[in-house]
Amino acid sequence: MRKEKLEELKYYIEELKTIKSVSTNGTFLKNEAYEFTLSNGFVIKREKLIKGNNDGSAVIIMPVTNNNEILTVVEPRVFTKETVGVGLPAGYIEKGEYPQDSALRELREETGYIPKSIIEVDSFYQDEGCSSAYNHIFLALNCIKKYPQQLDKDELIRYMLFSYEELVELEKLGYIKGANTKLALAKTKNFIRRKI
Amino acid sequence: MRKEKLEELKYYIEELKTIKSVSTNGTFLKNEAYEFTLSNGFVIKREKLIKGNNDGSAVIIMPVTNNNEILTVVEPRVFTKETVGVGLPAGYIEKGEYPQDSALRELREETGYIPKSIIEVDSFYQDEGCSSAYNHIFLALNCIKKYPQQLDKDELIRYMLFSYEELVELEKLGYIKGANTKLALAKTKNFIRRKI
Repeated sequence: MRKEKLEELKYYIEELKTIKSVSTNGTFLKNEAYEFTLSNGFVIKREKLIKGNNDGSAVIIMPVTNNNEILTVVEPRVFTKETVGVGLPAGYIEKGEYPQDSALRELREETGYIPKSIIEVDSFYQDEGCSSAYNHIFLALNCIKKYPQQLDKDELIRYMLFSYEELVELEKLGYIKGANTKLALAKTKNFIRRKI
Repeated sequence: MRKEKLEELKYYIEELKTIKSVSTNGTFLKNEAYEFTLSNGFVIKREKLIKGNNDGSAVIIMPVTNNNEILTVVEPRVFTKETVGVGLPAGYIEKGEYPQDSALRELREETGYIPKSIIEVDSFYQDEGCSSAYNHIFLALNCIKKYPQQLDKDELIRYMLFSYEELVELEKLGYIKGANTKLALAKTKNFIRRKI
């Protein structure tokens, strides 16, 4: 791991830490409950998580630059013990949007980078017991910086470049802890190792 | 893939499919909203998912038998497109419970098997944007059937045995789609391949 990279990462983590929280009213998360009859006659009750009137399906992007570095984001993850998370660019799919278009949009908004090509490498249910959220992992290749970062007013994202090996090291060191990024790292490993 | 195994799996999937659903009232999922002040002075709003008065932290168990087969569960996943999921035994950590004890309890309840030894192989946030749920992956070795299955009245779980390679094939075929099982398969791969 390059020492200056770890220093930069720690700087962002300090900057984005939560120092205070107050309870307020929410409008984003909602729940629905249903009773389901199964083919064998059994009846069960289950509850479903809704995110902003959608099911919360998301995209995760592994963006690789021409130098084989990977764009990595640092952002507040206020409900985690660390209060700041390190991971890959990601975001919710908007209504009517194709997953690949979400991936390109999220990558551009969060970092200002655009890729030369993009492919889907895997997809999965985020939390299949209580949600229909279905997430897609994309590999975005030959990414170059073309636009300024363009965040929502409630978003705060720092991005930086690491090699794939450094990301694996960050995961081992406990900086990367989210399911989405962990799965994306595992599912792109063979491709990245082949390419680099 | 053994043909009779795929037949058995398809039988359970048919049996557990949802054929009807009606809206009802829920008590399990809840939300909380907060305003967070960050170290750099920025203020952001975030909402948190609560599951049954806990944060929804869970355990996932990769249970290996003396024959190097892996206990796999089939159960209703009513919010997925397939309405039935195939994956590893898993469940929520109860209040005050150590993750390893949850893993032993869930494995016993869902299958009646107990292991000779158990080790944690990884842990991760399930959905770090809106939850503090922190999940633990366990590898349970030398599992033997000792008890009857012991399910809650709202649970319906079939279990069967596959080799690790068959599980990987089931993932490729699209039977295994949940983040938890996918991550557990990826994170135990080296261990399983070394052992078998």
